[in-house]
Amino acid sequence: MAAHDVFDLGDFRLTSGAVLPAAQLAYTAAGTLDAQRANVIVVPSAYGGTHSDSDWLIGPGKAFDTDRWFVVATNLFGNGLSTSPSTSALEHFPLVTIGDNVIAQHRLLTERFGIARIALVSGFSMGAQQTFEWGCRFPELVERIVPLCGSARTSPHNRVFIDGAVAALDAAGPAVVGRVWAAWGLSQAFYRNELWRGLAGATTLEAFVDERYGPTAFNGDPRDLRAMFATWRAADISAREPFAGDFPAALRAITARAIVMPARSDTYFPPEDSAIEVAHMPHAELRVIPSDWGHAAGAGSNPADDAFVEAALREILAAPAFTAQATPS
Amino acid sequence: MAAHDVFDLGDFRLTSGAVLPAAQLAYTAAGTLDAQRANVIVVPSAYGGTHSDSDWLIGPGKAFDTDRWFVVATNLFGNGLSTSPSTSALEHFPLVTIGDNVIAQHRLLTERFGIARIALVSGFSMGAQQTFEWGCRFPELVERIVPLCGSARTSPHNRVFIDGAVAALDAAGPAVVGRVWAAWGLSQAFYRNELWRGLAGATTLEAFVDERYGPTAFNGDPRDLRAMFATWRAADISAREPFAGDFPAALRAITARAIVMPARSDTYFPPEDSAIEVAHMPHAELRVIPSDWGHAAGAGSNPADDAFVEAALREILAAPAFTAQATPS
Repeated sequence: MAAHDVFDLGDFRLTSGAVLPAAQLAYTAAGTLDAQRANVIVVPSAYGGTHSDSDWLIGPGKAFDTDRWFVVATNLFGNGLSTSPSTSALEHFPLVTIGDNVIAQHRLLTERFGIARIALVSGFSMGAQQTFEWGCRFPELVERIVPLCGSARTSPHNRVFIDGAVAALDAAGPAVVGRVWAAWGLSQAFYRNELWRGLAGATTLEAFVDERYGPTAFNGDPRDLRAMFATWRAADISAREPFAGDFPAALRAITARAIVMPARSDTYFPPEDSAIEVAHMPHAELRVIPSDWGHAAGAGSNPADDAFVEAALREILAAPAFTAQATPS
Repeated sequence: MAAHDVFDLGDFRLTSGAVLPAAQLAYTAAGTLDAQRANVIVVPSAYGGTHSDSDWLIGPGKAFDTDRWFVVATNLFGNGLSTSPSTSALEHFPLVTIGDNVIAQHRLLTERFGIARIALVSGFSMGAQQTFEWGCRFPELVERIVPLCGSARTSPHNRVFIDGAVAALDAAGPAVVGRVWAAWGLSQAFYRNELWRGLAGATTLEAFVDERYGPTAFNGDPRDLRAMFATWRAADISAREPFAGDFPAALRAITARAIVMPARSDTYFPPEDSAIEVAHMPHAELRVIPSDWGHAAGAGSNPADDAFVEAALREILAAPAFTAQATPS
């Protein structure tokens, strides 16, 4: 994993009123901030992942070309790098919401880097949830968003399967969570078409699943795993004033140009949920990743999906921006 | 549960060569066998269920009208009524396949009842797997089949999620299996559209899930639960001579008139798998249940789906038969 920097948030008051003492946001920054402080791309991280999971997108000549863009990749609270139960002295780690994560990232970008605008926010899965949150909470800053395989509000079905994973975690520990997760992470079609053949040298279904979802698939501190599940479960861009649960109103507040990219075969975040979101977003396009890789389609898992995602990212970065002022740049 | 009868199989040799000592097949029979001994409907049971789960279909005036049909509802080995680890003195209960179940049912029907033909076999889920097996193994007897939300061969994706459930069962016991199962049993759309409202008096998502998938959802003997999972995992109509794994050839051997009924939103047995099966079956129609109830759509779960299934059952029972001799009756 690439070395990361840390932004000290001090005693960070969460939207719930609880405080994370001496909170830290771990991140990496690559590229050079331009004179307008506006060539910024923000890449939030996913459940159980880190900033380095986006390495496939970030670098010279890549979709987030660091010769042109200043790219900040952030770490979710609870992931073990940003403040987490495992790094905290707190006995009861509070619920940290997606909103809290984005507020902390906003402080990093404004206080440390003095950014004036954000050209693009794009993350995968829980990173996509943060992406929607950025667009909704800071519409005057965010010109474009591309949420990959994620939602603006955790669906009830997601909550049910998160609760199943937490039940397995509580009763049996992290080693079992991967096994109960294996059938969710990739799709029916992935397994039907045996797309695992040749991956990680696997020659049997069982060997592939052991390799990818074995005892170390969820190998973090169980408290951290629980904290991230809690963040995911509570995700909802409308769960605050002035929306007070009015989800369509919160989606309408996302004035950024958006390409919302679910995967056709994603069993967590099915395209139907994304279509509902896009219908309320003023400048959004639904662009479904035509993949059998299920949720993993948006995670840099294979060349065809990667090319499809990268093309959308390059396209939106070349397109005029929308912001809350509705002034195309 | 209605009282059931028992058919003694004696020391029952499985297709593997192993023997189930003093094996018993539990079943119910309703209606009257006609003079031709040909007005027979067979209804195999599903994972964790019993014959009584088909009560919604069986009775005077119902789809399987016992004023006209002789209806035999059978119990899967391992379900606690037919021979199961919990009823057996065997220390190591052998794998009992779907084929073994159907062979035992065939003995019941021929030895006890002397049936000449079977007008229809129709079961749900693992009952559908037995339905396909009946059509493939005894094409000269079986005139019609309607598999509901099941497959002729367990898909690789099924195997992965069965393994997840078994891992949870082994590590944490039956109480947790329901929780990790909850997100599979009903669909994303079921939860999105809050179809649980009003069911079992539930007023919250959590209360509904607790009620349906709480600690007693998988309340059998863990050994029985494992045995049924093993049967499910191994299901494959082509896993025997003369097919030797040639799945299309085994499907072509199903000469019965068939309506194959997956549910649109079933996450275990998606319609894509059924379409592949139907493409190889000479007299089969694919008829997708247009439901948001996921796998449960075929289980007698709600009036709309029940009516859709019942209409298909009545229709096929009124239609000419096909058998291996290809002589429409």
